Amino acid sequence: MFSHLIFVVKLIMNLSSQTTVMNFLNEIADEFPSAISLAAGQPTGQFFGRLNPGALRDILVCYERYAAGGQDLLKVRERLLQYGRTAGIITKLVAQQLSMDEGVAASSDRVLITSGCQEALALCLPTLCPDPRDVALMCNPTYIGATCAAQASGVAVFPLPNTVLDIVEGIEQSIHQLHQSGRRVRVVYLIPNFDNPTGRVLDESQRRAILATCARLRIVVLEDNPYGMFRYEGQAIQPMAALDQGGCVIYLSTFSKTLAPAVRIGAATLPETLFGDRAASRALWCALVHRKSFLTVNTSQITQAIVGGLLLEQNGSLQQWIQPALAWYRNNRDAMLSQLQAVFSSMSDRIRWNHPSGGFFISVDLPFRFDAKAVLECATDYGVIVMPMSFFAFDDSQDQRVRLAFSGVDPQQIRIGITSLAQYVTRRMGHEMSTLKRTHTH
Amino acid sequence: MFSHLIFVVKLIMNLSSQTTVMNFLNEIADEFPSAISLAAGQPTGQFFGRLNPGALRDILVCYERYAAGGQDLLKVRERLLQYGRTAGIITKLVAQQLSMDEGVAASSDRVLITSGCQEALALCLPTLCPDPRDVALMCNPTYIGATCAAQASGVAVFPLPNTVLDIVEGIEQSIHQLHQSGRRVRVVYLIPNFDNPTGRVLDESQRRAILATCARLRIVVLEDNPYGMFRYEGQAIQPMAALDQGGCVIYLSTFSKTLAPAVRIGAATLPETLFGDRAASRALWCALVHRKSFLTVNTSQITQAIVGGLLLEQNGSLQQWIQPALAWYRNNRDAMLSQLQAVFSSMSDRIRWNHPSGGFFISVDLPFRFDAKAVLECATDYGVIVMPMSFFAFDDSQDQRVRLAFSGVDPQQIRIGITSLAQYVTRRMGHEMSTLKRTHTH
Repeated sequence: MFSHLIFVVKLIMNLSSQTTVMNFLNEIADEFPSAISLAAGQPTGQFFGRLNPGALRDILVCYERYAAGGQDLLKVRERLLQYGRTAGIITKLVAQQLSMDEGVAASSDRVLITSGCQEALALCLPTLCPDPRDVALMCNPTYIGATCAAQASGVAVFPLPNTVLDIVEGIEQSIHQLHQSGRRVRVVYLIPNFDNPTGRVLDESQRRAILATCARLRIVVLEDNPYGMFRYEGQAIQPMAALDQGGCVIYLSTFSKTLAPAVRIGAATLPETLFGDRAASRALWCALVHRKSFLTVNTSQITQAIVGGLLLEQNGSLQQWIQPALAWYRNNRDAMLSQLQAVFSSMSDRIRWNHPSGGFFISVDLPFRFDAKAVLECATDYGVIVMPMSFFAFDDSQDQRVRLAFSGVDPQQIRIGITSLAQYVTRRMGHEMSTLKRTHTH
Repeated sequence: MFSHLIFVVKLIMNLSSQTTVMNFLNEIADEFPSAISLAAGQPTGQFFGRLNPGALRDILVCYERYAAGGQDLLKVRERLLQYGRTAGIITKLVAQQLSMDEGVAASSDRVLITSGCQEALALCLPTLCPDPRDVALMCNPTYIGATCAAQASGVAVFPLPNTVLDIVEGIEQSIHQLHQSGRRVRVVYLIPNFDNPTGRVLDESQRRAILATCARLRIVVLEDNPYGMFRYEGQAIQPMAALDQGGCVIYLSTFSKTLAPAVRIGAATLPETLFGDRAASRALWCALVHRKSFLTVNTSQITQAIVGGLLLEQNGSLQQWIQPALAWYRNNRDAMLSQLQAVFSSMSDRIRWNHPSGGFFISVDLPFRFDAKAVLECATDYGVIVMPMSFFAFDDSQDQRVRLAFSGVDPQQIRIGITSLAQYVTRRMGHEMSTLKRTHTH
């Protein structure tokens, strides 16, 4: 009981610091414009030229022709620029893309188009957790946008424990403990592919085990999959939504990474049944549509038409479209891994990092605390900005880790950035050593 | 005390019915596609052709050139398609337009660009009313999007009384009564120009008196002005934001009516000081930006660039751009008023309507209840769909009124629609008469 209270207090403290932390990072980036930022997990802009104004015109024309289907083009244009269906006008095309590219058997009447995936989070969390006793479970660390969407809508979040090795065990333990203190776990939020911030992947057996637990206890899995299409080697693991037999996965997707963030198009796809109940899934979809109508009315039909037109031009799949970015990210990841190896090999007993086979992030374990002060020192003295893992955490368990993003920079910047980080780390370690020595001498 | 409780209960009952009512109306429109709809308050699509794909390309090119300012166009394009500033990238252009077209002295650092004006409501209401005791006051009837944005974010709404003749008196009475029952009025939501749903205009002395009361009691006026630029005759009255001396008006604006709903661009403009405190206004702006980052991250920079580019092409003002629509709406209003006169002149003692000098709506007082059943009968038997005023109301005070929208139809449809409505009204009145007679005979 008490430990939960402590969690809640920590959570609140941490969340408010997390949110100011985002401002802090923006300010730092503004203040050191020449610093190399390995902090921002944004997609590369290298290939955005394909969405220049002329290309957008062609894409819109393509969508208009499709929507008209041989009928009056002017009527279609008029309808396109008007208010429209809250659930979106490209649900069919998005369902088809999810099916082709992600193996998720989506049908258009279970898709809700949102103003970016963030809106999907802001809709799902309060709708699934209407009661003050309701709880959403999240990994520790996890994506700030998820914790803050919960906070903004008054939904209680509890972190999964890092004290157990297995995530399934952690989920079951949390559910049990929370149940005993009168709380009800309603949602588990997960990024199974190339997690933000850690880069971690849940293997198929973990996914199946989580699904079995959640189906049994009627808990919704909110599966966020922004990085799934960015795998650089190895066999893809099916999304939890594709493995779901019990009707417990709401699948969140986005075009921010595959196309461009500026389209602000995401989607929530509901399961065919909610825990076996078809009408319940439909009712949930209606409740989400309903809530959306009071947040943003509907998603811009201009940017929906851009996404829809591009999907049409690409014959439904974005596999070909993302190839240049995929190659770029793979090369960046390799550059970052080899530079980490080059600069830290002599300290490999004290500094470790993972080798993600996809996504945008590598996490590095350091032998000292890396906090907001460290960010500032690093930016000021070494011209590199990195993200403390603690910014994504519910407690102090992540204090000695950083998240490095390789998506928004080029290999040259990566090499310089990692070398600069190594210089800072060396100074810090020397300082820690001498502090340690002084302490011992005293 | 009790009357407030009753209000709250009614409010909740009404709100949930209001929301299903929207579905009901959509369903009716779908079920009777050939019926003439005087229910939807959407802008005319007559002039949307000016935003065809080729025009949008030119507008985007115009914005890109402006944003580049002679520098690297490719960098600008890359930044445009990326994630970006939460408060928006066209705050300066929007501030300039508000100043030129509405007389609101906005400065760009007090503007927040939102995903449609609905998002501005969804941000402002919970931010201004964080405590469970906090209350937002609204007119009865009022715009459903405002009451539902409050409901979705857990903000209590109280209706202004219709028992007093003067709105200022009503506001003061409500504040006093609520204060006595331990509640705190934080916001008064108003549509001073051509109100949705009533078409009513607050005159300058009413605006000044409300401002004086709100400044004295530190209550924010949430001034929603979607129809201000659509005045068909007479002298414009300054927006409350322009008259505000005490720093109490947040001004909500939208491009849905001037350009097209599909751009999904609105704005909230804060006062220079909040009740005389410059830092407090800045802090409120930051809190709104903050909350927006967890709802939608930022507003689509593609549609922002469309609005921005169009403002540049139009030299900052939309006065010229809206001329064709303005003429169209004026003509429609005249058609509706003369048709109402033609069909109802013989019943002028029992049927009355207002003569709004702007906006999209006329309200009609009937001598009988016009409810959901009446909507269905009207659509089925007479092929016209109108909006019961009760759908916007907190109580039964509006049960004998309907809202007629003349914005989204043409004069021919207006004439047929009003004639059909008159046939239904005549039938109902005959029925009421005979019921009355039968009752008397018994």
